[in-house]
Amino acid sequence: MRAELIGVGTEILLGQICNDNAQWMSQRLAEIGVDVLWHQAVGDNEDRIAEAFRLALSRVDVVLATGGLGPTQDDITREGVGAALGVRLVRRPEIEEFLREKFARMGRDMPESNLRQADVPEGARYILPDRGTAPGLICETAQGRRVCLVPGVPVEMREMMTGTILPELARLSGSAALVSRVIRVTGMAEAKVGEELDDLFRGSANPSLAYLAGGGEVKVRVTAKAPSRAEAEALIDPVAGEVARRLGRFVFTEDDEDLEIVVGRLMKARGMTVAAAESLTGGGLGLRLSRAPGSSLFFKGSAVCYTAEAKRDVLGVRQETLDGPGVVSEECAREMAGGARRNFRADLGVALTGVAGPEAHGDQPVGTVCVGLSWDGGEESRRFRAPGDRDMVRRWAEQAALDLLRRHLESSNGP
Amino acid sequence: MRAELIGVGTEILLGQICNDNAQWMSQRLAEIGVDVLWHQAVGDNEDRIAEAFRLALSRVDVVLATGGLGPTQDDITREGVGAALGVRLVRRPEIEEFLREKFARMGRDMPESNLRQADVPEGARYILPDRGTAPGLICETAQGRRVCLVPGVPVEMREMMTGTILPELARLSGSAALVSRVIRVTGMAEAKVGEELDDLFRGSANPSLAYLAGGGEVKVRVTAKAPSRAEAEALIDPVAGEVARRLGRFVFTEDDEDLEIVVGRLMKARGMTVAAAESLTGGGLGLRLSRAPGSSLFFKGSAVCYTAEAKRDVLGVRQETLDGPGVVSEECAREMAGGARRNFRADLGVALTGVAGPEAHGDQPVGTVCVGLSWDGGEESRRFRAPGDRDMVRRWAEQAALDLLRRHLESSNGP
Repeated sequence: MRAELIGVGTEILLGQICNDNAQWMSQRLAEIGVDVLWHQAVGDNEDRIAEAFRLALSRVDVVLATGGLGPTQDDITREGVGAALGVRLVRRPEIEEFLREKFARMGRDMPESNLRQADVPEGARYILPDRGTAPGLICETAQGRRVCLVPGVPVEMREMMTGTILPELARLSGSAALVSRVIRVTGMAEAKVGEELDDLFRGSANPSLAYLAGGGEVKVRVTAKAPSRAEAEALIDPVAGEVARRLGRFVFTEDDEDLEIVVGRLMKARGMTVAAAESLTGGGLGLRLSRAPGSSLFFKGSAVCYTAEAKRDVLGVRQETLDGPGVVSEECAREMAGGARRNFRADLGVALTGVAGPEAHGDQPVGTVCVGLSWDGGEESRRFRAPGDRDMVRRWAEQAALDLLRRHLESSNGP
Repeated sequence: MRAELIGVGTEILLGQICNDNAQWMSQRLAEIGVDVLWHQAVGDNEDRIAEAFRLALSRVDVVLATGGLGPTQDDITREGVGAALGVRLVRRPEIEEFLREKFARMGRDMPESNLRQADVPEGARYILPDRGTAPGLICETAQGRRVCLVPGVPVEMREMMTGTILPELARLSGSAALVSRVIRVTGMAEAKVGEELDDLFRGSANPSLAYLAGGGEVKVRVTAKAPSRAEAEALIDPVAGEVARRLGRFVFTEDDEDLEIVVGRLMKARGMTVAAAESLTGGGLGLRLSRAPGSSLFFKGSAVCYTAEAKRDVLGVRQETLDGPGVVSEECAREMAGGARRNFRADLGVALTGVAGPEAHGDQPVGTVCVGLSWDGGEESRRFRAPGDRDMVRRWAEQAALDLLRRHLESSNGP
C-alpha cells in the first residue's frame, strides 16, 4: 500500500510551525508496512488544496492530510477535497448535534460558523473527536482509493490516527512490517563506509541500505519489508551482521544508541568510574557522560580548564609540558587525564584539548584535537584533525574521547 | 517571486528525521518577501526526484532543494535534477581539486567515490562549502526559472542559504521587507509577560506582537512589514522600546541574543573573569559560558562535581555543609561558587546544585535548584523550583545562573 501525506496550512509555508505531524505519521505508517512515497505541504487556498489532492490520488492508494478542518474561514480542506473528488459538501445532522452538545457541555454558546464543521464531502464517513471539535473524515473513491482527513493539532491528529485510521489501514494492507535497524560507526569517513559496503548497497533491495553522516559519525540503516516484524528482522539479521563485521571496531552500536549511552552501559557493566578533563569542549564532554541513564553511578565529574594556568593549577599539568609541547599536545592531554583521575578519585580519566576555532592556536590549526586516557598503570593518547566549524570540531572531539573510552572498556575486565 | 521547497531523502519519508530544514528556509524566504507556495518531500529514487522537480518547475519561479548531495550511492539529487532539466552531468575539475585539497588538509585520503560530488548538471554554478564536502548548485532554466540545491545537513544548508542563495534571491525579488525584532526575558512567567503587554498585543497590527515561551525564557517578537527594511525598523522602534520599558530588568536582550552571549559581552566590558561549579547540569553551564565569542578572555573553567565527595575534595565544600543542609542547599551552592573562584583564580564564581531527576533527592523534589555567586568580599544565592523533565530543569538552572551573573555584572563596575 502506497501513501502520501499532505499538510494543509499557510503557517507551515511561512515556517511559523514545523510540519512534524508528517514525521510522526510517517513513523506510524512505516510500522504497519505502508510505504510513504511523498509528503506535500500546501497553504490555505482552495484551488491549490484541490490540486494537491488530485495529484496525490493519481499516484498512491491512500492520502492522509492534516489541518484545515477548523471552524474559521481559512479552514478549507473540506472544500478542496470536495473539489478534487468532484463531490459537493453536505451538512450532516449527526455532526451538528454532536457540536451543539459539545458546546453545551462546555457551557459555551456555539458560534454559528462552527457548523461548517458539519459539512462533509458527500459519501464521507466521519470520526467524532474526543478532544477538540473537528471531526475526522474518510472518503473512498470509485477507484478504491482513500482520503483520510485529520485535524492539524497534534493530540487531535494522534487520537484519530491511533484510534481509527491506523488500525483500518493495517487491516487493509495485510499489515506488512517495515523494520529498520541502525548501525552507527565513528572514526571512519562516510565515503570509506560507502566503499566497504558498496556491494551490499548495490546488491540488496530487501533489506535496503542507506547512509546518514553527521556529528562525527555515520549511521548505516538497514531496512526490510516482510509480512511480519519477525520475518523482517530475519531478513535484516544477516545483512546487519555483515555490515557490523566489515566495519569492525568502528561500530559502537547495532541498535541506534548514542555513543554516551553505550559508554555508560559499559562503565556500569565493568563497575568502573570515570572523570573528565576538558578544554575546547567547554563542558560538553561532561554533559554527554552525564546524559547516560544512571550516570551518577559511574560519572564523578569533569574539570573544564579553559586556560593554561587552570590546567596546571587544577589538573597538575607540568609547567615543562606547557612550556614545551604546549597546551595542545598529546602530553598535555595525558597529564590532564591523569589529573582528572586523581582529583575525582576515579578509575579512568579522559581528557580533551585542542583548537575549536575560530582562531588557530599558534601554529596549531583550527580542528586540531588531542585526546588522552589515563588508568591505574597506563595511559594512551591520540591526535587528529576535525573538520568544520567550532560546533563541529567540539562534537568530533567529544566523539573521539567517548570512543577512546569505549574501546578501552571493551578490552578491559574491570578496575 | 514564488518558491517551492523539496526535501530529498528516504529518511524523511520513514519519519527518521523531521524535515525542519523546510521550516527554517520558509522563515528566511518570508523575511525577504519570497512566497513559498509548496513543500514536497521525496525519497532517494531518481525517477521520483525528477518528477518532483518537473512539477515544481511548472508552477514556481525558484525551487530550493535539500539533501542527496553527499558522496554515497544513495545521494542522487544531482542525477534527478539533470533528468528533470534534460541535461547531463559533467565533472568540474575545480570541484575535484577543492575536494582533494580539503581531504589533504584534514590529513585524510579521499575515497574515489567522493568525486561524485564534482559531477554537476551541465551549466550549473556551484557553491564551495566551508563545512562538509558537498558543493551547493544553482541551475537556471531557459525559461528563467531557478533550481538551488543545498546539502541536507542543517549547518551546511544554512551556510549556503545565508551566504549566497538568500542574498541572490532578495536582489532578484526586490520586494517588501518583513522584519522582526526579538526581545527576550528570563525570570518572568509567560502569562505575566502577556498581562504586561496585553494592550500592545491587541492594539497593534503592524508591527504585530507574538510570544514564544520555552527553555527558561520568553521571547517577544515584534514584526513589521514595509517597503524597505529601514521603514520596517522605524515601525518597530517605538513598540519594541515600550515592550522593553515595561518588562524592565527581566529583559536580557532586545536583539535576540542568547543569555550567554550577553553575559560574555558584559564580562569583557568589565574586564572580569569567571569560573563555574556545577552538579545537576553536568557541564552545561561551562558549555554555555564557553559559547560566547572570545570566551577564553573571561571564562577560566568549570568544575563539574557530580558526587558529594567531589564537591568536598575538589571544591572545598565543608563536611558540615554536606552533613547539615546537604548538597542541594544554598549554603552548598555558595561554597561551590567560592571554591570555583579560588581554584580557577577568577574574579567571580558561579555555582549550581539541584535535582534534575528523574528521582527526587531525599525530601528535595525534582526541579529544586540552588544557584550561588561568589565575589571578592561577597556572595549571593537563591533557590527555586524549575518545571518539567530533566533537560528542562537543567536548562532553567543554567538560565538562572547566567542571569544571576548578568544582574551582578550590570550593577558592577569591574573587579
